[in-house]
Amino acid sequence: MKWFPNILPKKSRAHKDGIFYEKLSRIVGYKPTRIEIYEEAFTHSSAGKTNGNGHTVNYERLEYLGDAVLGLVAASYLHQNAPNQAEGYLTKMRSKIVSRNNLNKIGKDLNLLSLLKCNVNVKDFGENIYGNIFESLIGAMYTEKGFDFTKKFVYKKLIQPIEPLEDLENKIISYKSIFIEHCQKRKKYFLFDVQEEKSKEENKHFVVKLHYDEKIIAKGRATSKKKAEEQAAKRAYYSLQKSKSSVNKK
Amino acid sequence: MKWFPNILPKKSRAHKDGIFYEKLSRIVGYKPTRIEIYEEAFTHSSAGKTNGNGHTVNYERLEYLGDAVLGLVAASYLHQNAPNQAEGYLTKMRSKIVSRNNLNKIGKDLNLLSLLKCNVNVKDFGENIYGNIFESLIGAMYTEKGFDFTKKFVYKKLIQPIEPLEDLENKIISYKSIFIEHCQKRKKYFLFDVQEEKSKEENKHFVVKLHYDEKIIAKGRATSKKKAEEQAAKRAYYSLQKSKSSVNKK
Repeated sequence: MKWFPNILPKKSRAHKDGIFYEKLSRIVGYKPTRIEIYEEAFTHSSAGKTNGNGHTVNYERLEYLGDAVLGLVAASYLHQNAPNQAEGYLTKMRSKIVSRNNLNKIGKDLNLLSLLKCNVNVKDFGENIYGNIFESLIGAMYTEKGFDFTKKFVYKKLIQPIEPLEDLENKIISYKSIFIEHCQKRKKYFLFDVQEEKSKEENKHFVVKLHYDEKIIAKGRATSKKKAEEQAAKRAYYSLQKSKSSVNKK
Repeated sequence: MKWFPNILPKKSRAHKDGIFYEKLSRIVGYKPTRIEIYEEAFTHSSAGKTNGNGHTVNYERLEYLGDAVLGLVAASYLHQNAPNQAEGYLTKMRSKIVSRNNLNKIGKDLNLLSLLKCNVNVKDFGENIYGNIFESLIGAMYTEKGFDFTKKFVYKKLIQPIEPLEDLENKIISYKSIFIEHCQKRKKYFLFDVQEEKSKEENKHFVVKLHYDEKIIAKGRATSKKKAEEQAAKRAYYSLQKSKSSVNKK
């Protein structure tokens, strides 16, 4: 069993005098009483034990719950703080607030990885591990402390740092979704053809060929499928922008 | 200004002695204090007034908020009541619980359309109006009464009627998503080519040609874009099933 980045004694997670409990209390700002929920929130699938019902206990279920909590907190914040904006604006801004980049940044700032129990090399994780365990922490907090309490914590960690809203408005978060929108508007075929690269390198990579209008318009390569798709979509976006402006010049 | 289905005097919405207030109180089971939120929740865009900031007041913003509330209530319920199921199961089941069909049914059962202020013929509405204003009611309730109160209401109206969970498990809610999954697995091109039908009929229709693997595999025609797509996807699904089983027989 490996612990990252510190080697912690096993009992430290389950006991209130342990390092896990101490660190966790400092991060959340209160003394958790149902410690087993937070243990689950910080257990990676590689280290998850199977319970009596054949269910492997790891952070994924709490991550799922936390995602729904964040969704409502962000929607609620926008509804209240952008009273003159239509629904489309709220939808767009919410996806920016709860973007992977934002959530990863918070998970990193809170040093959540130091609480994670896992059985794999940390190099195998992409950036998203940070956001994922931030979400599972939120799921655990909601389970113990309820919605209103958790909402305040999320405001402090997620919402306040991105204010004022205007700064977020012009930020492009997902080139992939912009690209897909472009295709749907113009009724163009597209396909993200993703392959896992077979190589002897330690870190695995994914390569994406992005087909558009029966040609390969761009490629991407990265350590996660999502990143590689995003890279290809970004390149395709700029390539389409360029061809549009050269058409306009003619 | 038309009211559907009853002709209500205009003042009845804003005043606590009016029919709107009385009906609403009966539906939600309490006496609302911030009546203006509920007025917004039951105003269709055709009847929405523009406020000083150029924003048209209608139910769409509250519908968006209510959608996030329902998402969390359903996630929370599943997390608690399916303790041995993995995240994938929770995701799948949630989309079944908050499916348009389910929400429309509840909106219809609660007779919410009788509270709606609108300026168009009710025939122009698709089925989804019922679910939409159920969502906006939930958004209004959350705004006035908070999450924990609203959660109880949603449990009673949305969750209890679909229990036990096992009955929902095998229900196919969206053929479109099954079809898209099929294409992505097999790296097949697909395109939902949707056109609005130009006809002199009173109700407008949408026609969909579903392209798959460079052929048109199925068509759909319905009063909404979504329904037409779903119809085409369902036909494509059965056509693919059929060709799969005939291949297996050979």
